[in-house]
Amino acid sequence: MEILKEHRCFGGNVNFWQHDSTTIKTKMKFSTFTPPGEVKGALIWLSGLTCTDENFITKASAQKYLAEKQLMVICPDTSPRGLDLPNEHESYDFGSGASFYLNATTPGYSDHYRMYDYVAFEIYEILNTKFAARNRISIAGHSMGGHGALTIGLKEKDRFKSISAISPIVNPSQIPWGQKAFKGYLGDDQNMWKAHDACELVKSGITHMNPIMIDQGLKDDFLNRQLFPENFQGVCRMAGQELNLRMLEGYDHSYYFISSFIQDHIEFHSEFLK
Amino acid sequence: MEILKEHRCFGGNVNFWQHDSTTIKTKMKFSTFTPPGEVKGALIWLSGLTCTDENFITKASAQKYLAEKQLMVICPDTSPRGLDLPNEHESYDFGSGASFYLNATTPGYSDHYRMYDYVAFEIYEILNTKFAARNRISIAGHSMGGHGALTIGLKEKDRFKSISAISPIVNPSQIPWGQKAFKGYLGDDQNMWKAHDACELVKSGITHMNPIMIDQGLKDDFLNRQLFPENFQGVCRMAGQELNLRMLEGYDHSYYFISSFIQDHIEFHSEFLK
Repeated sequence: MEILKEHRCFGGNVNFWQHDSTTIKTKMKFSTFTPPGEVKGALIWLSGLTCTDENFITKASAQKYLAEKQLMVICPDTSPRGLDLPNEHESYDFGSGASFYLNATTPGYSDHYRMYDYVAFEIYEILNTKFAARNRISIAGHSMGGHGALTIGLKEKDRFKSISAISPIVNPSQIPWGQKAFKGYLGDDQNMWKAHDACELVKSGITHMNPIMIDQGLKDDFLNRQLFPENFQGVCRMAGQELNLRMLEGYDHSYYFISSFIQDHIEFHSEFLK
Repeated sequence: MEILKEHRCFGGNVNFWQHDSTTIKTKMKFSTFTPPGEVKGALIWLSGLTCTDENFITKASAQKYLAEKQLMVICPDTSPRGLDLPNEHESYDFGSGASFYLNATTPGYSDHYRMYDYVAFEIYEILNTKFAARNRISIAGHSMGGHGALTIGLKEKDRFKSISAISPIVNPSQIPWGQKAFKGYLGDDQNMWKAHDACELVKSGITHMNPIMIDQGLKDDFLNRQLFPENFQGVCRMAGQELNLRMLEGYDHSYYFISSFIQDHIEFHSEFLK
């Protein structure tokens, strides 16, 4: 693990890292913020389409609140980089920058696009072995990263203390972004898609022991084309999954929205990371 | 004045604007954050070399504190754009992105690089006429923008209620960045440079009625090559200019430093904008 950059921030450190991932089988980048003093818990933040390991750490304004709660954050990149798979670099919503945090099964992609295992196991172990997180780890994300946080957090509930998401994709098998990605990463059999769809997971009885927190802006251009948080609200209600969903007037899909409410998410997770 | 983008943020609005500047004689961009409710005062933020109107508004984490104090911020671009003057686009520290916030006198540049007048008069009037700032206006900036805030704020002390800077260039006529810029914008006569050098201004008796606040990181790569805040400290002491200079352990020249202390700057200015 190599440090590419380091910056003091709110008494702690922002670092940009590169390492040889055993899961992804290529070099991967991630960023961290570590608070001053002891690390009392860690949050994995998964970013959305087109993002890298830099967006959250530069634009979310989270460091102050992480420092106050003595939590660290780790932000993995949104896909493998430096490969040249079929159609990998043709569009913003498939391939590089658009992994959807699953283990791909299609030829070529199945060798490297194993972001589910990368996040749930390799990043998780880095948090324990390099950052002393001692399994006090939660997961959150934005948009495609919200999908990642919900699906990984639900399926690995023994590993993740709490889940939250901002403007998440909750029902990818029913929306254009998800359908394109799942076809490319998982193939045409839609039965295989269900294991990567948060609504389908909850519907099948997979729930989390703690409440899930979701914030959604009402002026989000993707709300009624790609997101449909009420679908998740419906299945949670039927499954008895506690959900704290806030629909927020005037906010859009940008980091200006994320920064406005990230304090609430950090305080939410800190309750379960104690 | 045309709105290019608008985002809700901390209950207020982030906007990106474009207008035909009468001072610069070309289109200029700036960004604003306006808090919810009445605007009780305005801060002009001047950015550093290579920045645009976007850096502060995306990376400084200032919106929360501005909203709390009901202050707005306006971030002008760091130079004219879309021109093609001699040597304008050859280097990062001269021409586009590097105006140094003065009124140029050299051929070609004298027609457009009039950023002093643009900030002190045109932007100032926009704050009064379009945003109801009612002359409750302060000025701050980073690096080259700190130089701009100090020189404009000192020379226009009747217009600006308070001045602060982060990692500012305080003595440009004595350092490589400033010498290159002043030669290009003002010509070879170094006597003409003094009117744009904060140390020279204070030495000549130009002071501000309120304390000046400066933060400087001790791990800043430019500290002992381009910045030398102690030069400003020395002349302020001799001139009786109250200065609150903090030298901060471990911090560098980046927005991670700015975001860590921007709350203090906003609270400082809010005292004088009441």
